[in-house]
Amino acid sequence: MSDISKTVKEIIARYDSGNVPANIDKPRQPSKAAIIDILDCLQKLVFPGYFEPKKLSREYIEYYVGDLVENVKYNLEKQMIYAIRCCKDGSKLDEEVKAKIAAEKTEAFLATIPKIQELLDTDVQATFDGDPAAASYDEIIYSYPGIYAIMVARIAHELYVLDVPLIPRIMTEHAHSLTGIDINPGAQIGKYFCIDHGTGIVIGETTVIGNHVKMYQGVTLGGISTAAGQQLKGKKRHPTIMDNVTIYSGASILGGDTVIGEGTVIGGNVFVTSSVDDNQRVTIKNQELRFTARRKASGDDKRKNN
Amino acid sequence: MSDISKTVKEIIARYDSGNVPANIDKPRQPSKAAIIDILDCLQKLVFPGYFEPKKLSREYIEYYVGDLVENVKYNLEKQMIYAIRCCKDGSKLDEEVKAKIAAEKTEAFLATIPKIQELLDTDVQATFDGDPAAASYDEIIYSYPGIYAIMVARIAHELYVLDVPLIPRIMTEHAHSLTGIDINPGAQIGKYFCIDHGTGIVIGETTVIGNHVKMYQGVTLGGISTAAGQQLKGKKRHPTIMDNVTIYSGASILGGDTVIGEGTVIGGNVFVTSSVDDNQRVTIKNQELRFTARRKASGDDKRKNN
Amino acid sequence: MSDISKTVKEIIARYDSGNVPANIDKPRQPSKAAIIDILDCLQKLVFPGYFEPKKLSREYIEYYVGDLVENVKYNLEKQMIYAIRCCKDGSKLDEEVKAKIAAEKTEAFLATIPKIQELLDTDVQATFDGDPAAASYDEIIYSYPGIYAIMVARIAHELYVLDVPLIPRIMTEHAHSLTGIDINPGAQIGKYFCIDHGTGIVIGETTVIGNHVKMYQGVTLGGISTAAGQQLKGKKRHPTIMDNVTIYSGASILGGDTVIGEGTVIGGNVFVTSSVDDNQRVTIKNQELRFTARRKASGDDKRKNN
Repeated sequence: MSDISKTVKEIIARYDSGNVPANIDKPRQPSKAAIIDILDCLQKLVFPGYFEPKKLSREYIEYYVGDLVENVKYNLEKQMIYAIRCCKDGSKLDEEVKAKIAAEKTEAFLATIPKIQELLDTDVQATFDGDPAAASYDEIIYSYPGIYAIMVARIAHELYVLDVPLIPRIMTEHAHSLTGIDINPGAQIGKYFCIDHGTGIVIGETTVIGNHVKMYQGVTLGGISTAAGQQLKGKKRHPTIMDNVTIYSGASILGGDTVIGEGTVIGGNVFVTSSVDDNQRVTIKNQELRFTARRKASGDDKRKNN
Repeated sequence: MSDISKTVKEIIARYDSGNVPANIDKPRQPSKAAIIDILDCLQKLVFPGYFEPKKLSREYIEYYVGDLVENVKYNLEKQMIYAIRCCKDGSKLDEEVKAKIAAEKTEAFLATIPKIQELLDTDVQATFDGDPAAASYDEIIYSYPGIYAIMVARIAHELYVLDVPLIPRIMTEHAHSLTGIDINPGAQIGKYFCIDHGTGIVIGETTVIGNHVKMYQGVTLGGISTAAGQQLKGKKRHPTIMDNVTIYSGASILGGDTVIGEGTVIGGNVFVTSSVDDNQRVTIKNQELRFTARRKASGDDKRKNN
Repeated sequence: MSDISKTVKEIIARYDSGNVPANIDKPRQPSKAAIIDILDCLQKLVFPGYFEPKKLSREYIEYYVGDLVENVKYNLEKQMIYAIRCCKDGSKLDEEVKAKIAAEKTEAFLATIPKIQELLDTDVQATFDGDPAAASYDEIIYSYPGIYAIMVARIAHELYVLDVPLIPRIMTEHAHSLTGIDINPGAQIGKYFCIDHGTGIVIGETTVIGNHVKMYQGVTLGGISTAAGQQLKGKKRHPTIMDNVTIYSGASILGGDTVIGEGTVIGGNVFVTSSVDDNQRVTIKNQELRFTARRKASGDDKRKNN
């Protein structure tokens, strides 16, 4: 037996000895590529004319929208059937029942698109109003990672509410990969949400966020401890952020009972694990810095000659 | 009316009721894909032979470079016209004027490529000299996110200086998406700039960075507050970093009047909102840690048995 | 001479005047796209049936695995020859010797796949057990950035151990780009490794990590100072993390002599540069916060009216 065929046999043998069952002789899985394609169609629907290689004309707008909606409907329904087949509860259902559930949930989701549009309209405004570096709405819709991550989170949240397995998380992790912003589909987010820069933001599954909240890079809205693991499933583990709160970069707000009151500003790098009143400004008290005169490193002189 | 056609009508109705105008019956927008393609060509120009599926030979180098430059010229000019048509000031101009501006700015940009090459040459050296994990220049050019982000920032900055709308930010946000490093095209960056790891770095629009500056992941060069939003546009809101400064991971340096003096080292997680003298080492004084003996979590025993 | 041909000549002139040698008349470089393709094949091998557009059947599993292994073998060997040709030591070898080394190292790597499978099986379990937001193993394998980054790190580590140039780092930087998690191929990582969220994590080249370690976003396992640059190559510069350690978000653990003892929990944002005993809970003592009542910013009222 060649080394290669030995390796092949060993790889296959491992499929049966792992604790995580291999996905063999099981229903096929949803396609990540197809789900990303659905997101692309939805992005074109909610921000018409930005991601098209041509001018969009009012005359044909119904064809344009109709075609995209039909596309989403067809593909989402199909991926939902795959997802239902793979998940614990869904796999036991009759094929017809699965198809019926997928059709109903897809239709219910499609009906939420106008609401998603309405919310995103407020998010783009809040982002423009809040960022002096923003030159135009176009620039924001085109290139701001915050808007992309919020768009995907709002879409995925509607599917999460409909109890669709797998697909919402695949969507938000795709946005996480592109933007560094990790919003769990379970998070409830109000109007006029603004994320600036965004890399490193984590917003946990049971977070509740009010209206007019602004948030910078590296903010964590997380759990205090996950030592109990799966036993915590379903509990409120992440904070509640009331209206008009601003959270500066690197701040961590942890815990399911933590409520940040209306109008409060959380300063950079602040670490909060209990509630804060309305209209407070919370900063780190006396981050005492030490200033010591620096011995020149030997590398410096060399570098200065360049 | 079917549910689908009702949804289609509602989606279209929203296009007229949003505060952010929908992009219908307006000039077509620049293409993100085309702009990324321009970046790919520029990367091949400044780092010849690295991103080619073949050996690059000196004999044909003029054809190679000429073809890439011509490609950039053709596509950048085209995308610039789209961008000018979409922006507030540009849209009022005659089509011929737009085309002339785009042609002139494209030519002016192309003339800056040798300067960009010269700067990137210093950046690659600084990255190699500063990182014991770097095995070779090749490894850096090939795979270091810092070099990619700096390359795109230097390209975008030249277009920003030429007052080209939309395109510079689309470029830097593409780099942000790939690297987690968010450098605004407005930032002015000296020679021998080195970014290590880089994820989470934010460098604001009005930042000024000297020569031989080294920076780690999670560093923010930002504004102190953006509560005033668009009213701050054009003001110096971000710090000035002098020559030979090193900034360790997670440090935040905020404010337009903040100057970090030559040769100073800013320690990890330091939060600075005012100027620092030359040749200082700034660290957090007494981050007192609390050590408490740990009750074993019930999960531990189970885990140890695995 | 037109402006364009002047620019072309200046660009070419720069190729000879840079300190970083241009890659002209040198052996062709490895292909990033081909290396990513190898990773895709390996992902299908270690998580069979997840990334396929069809149901995977037991009947044909040997064809499926055999075809993927053969693919990896062919392409990895080819890319390895390119990489060896480009690196300092390798370039001096006879072509036959290079081919022989590449063939041997490829075979040696393939033989490690079952071990990689075994380790990843423990990682998926640890991730599921540790995260109340995880709905199923499927969700983790499909969409968790932590699992992807760990998979690539384990693959790249085997190539690093075999002293393969360039390719391991291209692999881990690809994962870094997709996940924001930067694990150097040199890092040694035990069983049951769990990364949650992950964006901003940096794990340095000489890090050693035990079994059952859990880590959150923004954690740095880094060096204390890299002022000495390339002189530090090969030294242990990064910490050692013993079994059953949990490290919360934003913590930095620095230095080659720093050992975090078994069972210890490092709290959020803690900055550690010396060793910690077993079974400790380390938190920031008295991060005193300042709460000040907030004057309403003028923007607030406007926003509340929306």
